[in-house]
Amino acid sequence: MLSVKEAESIVLNLAQPPDSQRDVETVDLLAASGRILAAPVTSSLDFPYWDNSAMDGYAVRFADVENCSAEKPAVLEVVEEIPAGSRPQNTVQPGEAARIFTGAMMPDGADTVVMQEETRREGDRIFVLVAPEKPQAFVRHKGAFYQAGTTLLNPGTVINAPEMAVLATAQCLQVPVYRRLRVAIFSTGDELVSPDQPLSPGKLVDSNQYALTVLLAQMGCEPIRLGIIPDNKDALQKAIGQAISTADVVLSTGGVSVGDYDYVEKILADLGGKIHIQAVAIKPGKPLTVAAFKRGETKYDAPISSSDCLYFGLPGNPVSALVCCWRFVVPALRKMSGLGADAWGPEFVKARCNVELRSIGKRETYVWGKLYLVMGVWEFEPASGSQNSANLINLANTTGLAVLPAAETWIPPGEFVEVLKVSY
Amino acid sequence: MLSVKEAESIVLNLAQPPDSQRDVETVDLLAASGRILAAPVTSSLDFPYWDNSAMDGYAVRFADVENCSAEKPAVLEVVEEIPAGSRPQNTVQPGEAARIFTGAMMPDGADTVVMQEETRREGDRIFVLVAPEKPQAFVRHKGAFYQAGTTLLNPGTVINAPEMAVLATAQCLQVPVYRRLRVAIFSTGDELVSPDQPLSPGKLVDSNQYALTVLLAQMGCEPIRLGIIPDNKDALQKAIGQAISTADVVLSTGGVSVGDYDYVEKILADLGGKIHIQAVAIKPGKPLTVAAFKRGETKYDAPISSSDCLYFGLPGNPVSALVCCWRFVVPALRKMSGLGADAWGPEFVKARCNVELRSIGKRETYVWGKLYLVMGVWEFEPASGSQNSANLINLANTTGLAVLPAAETWIPPGEFVEVLKVSY
Repeated sequence: MLSVKEAESIVLNLAQPPDSQRDVETVDLLAASGRILAAPVTSSLDFPYWDNSAMDGYAVRFADVENCSAEKPAVLEVVEEIPAGSRPQNTVQPGEAARIFTGAMMPDGADTVVMQEETRREGDRIFVLVAPEKPQAFVRHKGAFYQAGTTLLNPGTVINAPEMAVLATAQCLQVPVYRRLRVAIFSTGDELVSPDQPLSPGKLVDSNQYALTVLLAQMGCEPIRLGIIPDNKDALQKAIGQAISTADVVLSTGGVSVGDYDYVEKILADLGGKIHIQAVAIKPGKPLTVAAFKRGETKYDAPISSSDCLYFGLPGNPVSALVCCWRFVVPALRKMSGLGADAWGPEFVKARCNVELRSIGKRETYVWGKLYLVMGVWEFEPASGSQNSANLINLANTTGLAVLPAAETWIPPGEFVEVLKVSY
Repeated sequence: MLSVKEAESIVLNLAQPPDSQRDVETVDLLAASGRILAAPVTSSLDFPYWDNSAMDGYAVRFADVENCSAEKPAVLEVVEEIPAGSRPQNTVQPGEAARIFTGAMMPDGADTVVMQEETRREGDRIFVLVAPEKPQAFVRHKGAFYQAGTTLLNPGTVINAPEMAVLATAQCLQVPVYRRLRVAIFSTGDELVSPDQPLSPGKLVDSNQYALTVLLAQMGCEPIRLGIIPDNKDALQKAIGQAISTADVVLSTGGVSVGDYDYVEKILADLGGKIHIQAVAIKPGKPLTVAAFKRGETKYDAPISSSDCLYFGLPGNPVSALVCCWRFVVPALRKMSGLGADAWGPEFVKARCNVELRSIGKRETYVWGKLYLVMGVWEFEPASGSQNSANLINLANTTGLAVLPAAETWIPPGEFVEVLKVSY
């Protein structure tokens, strides 16, 4: 059976980054919120746009004030007032100054700003009481922070608040972003009913499609819900065929445990898929199937794009399904979405656990619970109640998964353990 | 001047949690994605819904198999097959067994499951080769993980993937959540133009409204953009009046630095607001104004709700505005949104910084840059280029703000520093 590391490596190799031509769309500035840049952004504007004042004060010629002092102030005539947003009307001549405000454009002729606190005003004249340290004092220079034509933001950058500020400042009204990944999800099993259907004896509510919809939407993917598929070969083959022909990624749940395995394997193979993972030494989550469909080598067309399709057959158990997602699927989706390798995750932290952790030691074991930051130190607390993979109830409020390596059966209380940080 | 800690405490005291009656709306299950629960959720269903099998195997009576072994197998007649999703039709009598699959409902009469690997089948008979350890082996009991009527999820819980799985499982089709906070944003300053307007000399693009829109949307708030307000008392008074009468929180940017201060103060007072913060010893971000408007004590009506309104006058500088948001506004919004105190943040981590950090030492100084997790240890790297509060360009990709305490002017390279983790 594959180790977790081996499976991770296979999955990340199968997950291909988006194509910088094919998988790009252009959206309006505000619609770029949370999206991932698909091309370098440059601007034809310098930033600052022009020389401007860093202070409220007076724009002066350095030569006029370099030797002044409180005892021997420089006396200058104020020829203009330049509020922020105005274009200066005059060139400052020797012996002259312009009243200027923070952010206002420097007038021609002036090369230095003196702070208003270091001047005294009498009518149209100012007395400069302190010589500036050097020419250009308190002047923010055109292009000091960004020079027109150079790269402003790189592909792979997520447009959060600061990046949106940068795009707005550069007047980038149209933003090239990677298109959203289309992820088809369906559940299999004759026992499943949807949350609004009557729960007759023996039935189980299909919660996976709902949980996965939330996970995908929060990652910026487009979930395509295909519903509950009955447990027979024809229905399943039809559903998988539909999924792989409309989506970049398929997440099916259920129908991958021992008894049913060959069944799904045959369908995947019939549809032209290549199975790369049949099981992983992870608990919960062992019966994970991963298959890849290459466009051109399969029996279906891709109406949306010509990208390949990655199929994850997740366990039906909601805890196992989510653990597999957090460990394997989320990093793959991040890579396929266009994020850089440093953002794929999962993020592991060392956390102190004040209770013992146990496993049967045969598979890498993930214990769900809460991760806290206490005075700068991470602490992990396993969820109260049974760590049974059928117990999805205490999976609520999970923020971390403590990892017991495959060979370990016991970690004593008080030890630091690796914890996968679950991010939403 | 108030310290950062004092200002934080004032802001968090002014920010009131939502009302558990007034500020609640009921949404469909899937629409609850990312929302915050406003009331305890209970279910009339136990979970598991009924006794079911944890294995593929046979449901048996413990008394029939407790003494069996490979040498002396128990021989039982298979009277039924129970796939997952079916209701058992028969009661298992002494000497009988029912074929059962994982998750399938236990039949009456049977109290134990034996794994199929520990049996041998011949026609309608099975030979049980290994005695189960105890009665109830491999039976998941009705209500073992959740008992009907008890609290399933508490108010303040965010509906992420696991919580959605729980709600679906409990068939909670209608979910009580706190309404979204309405946050009005506007920018002030005659120098400002919007990104799609021509940038004539002296002008500056208003990036704050765009950055704040992203920040608010990502927090689940409803941004109300009121545009750029010209720098005159009437226009500003009208804008603030409109903002406080439609929103729970107002974020204005600009117009709060020294020269203009009394101006805004007077408007806020005229409208019935009480100013609690006029400046904070933080760099960047000193000119932060915070005022509270109590419903019933102000000159306006609140058409949306009767909640109070909290006004943040943020600096116009985009870097200063965002630093104030991350440090003060985001925790207040989290509290007002209904999250529990452990989720208000901001989250600080200890990170190693391999370069020196400097400040002028008069105010608590925030240095922006990137936070990395390297082999489980946080590292902080200041943004390259100028740490000038006018330099919004290198604020892109900020994931952390290193903190220099007010008295410190220098932290040598290689030290661990407090870093505010910027979360999106």
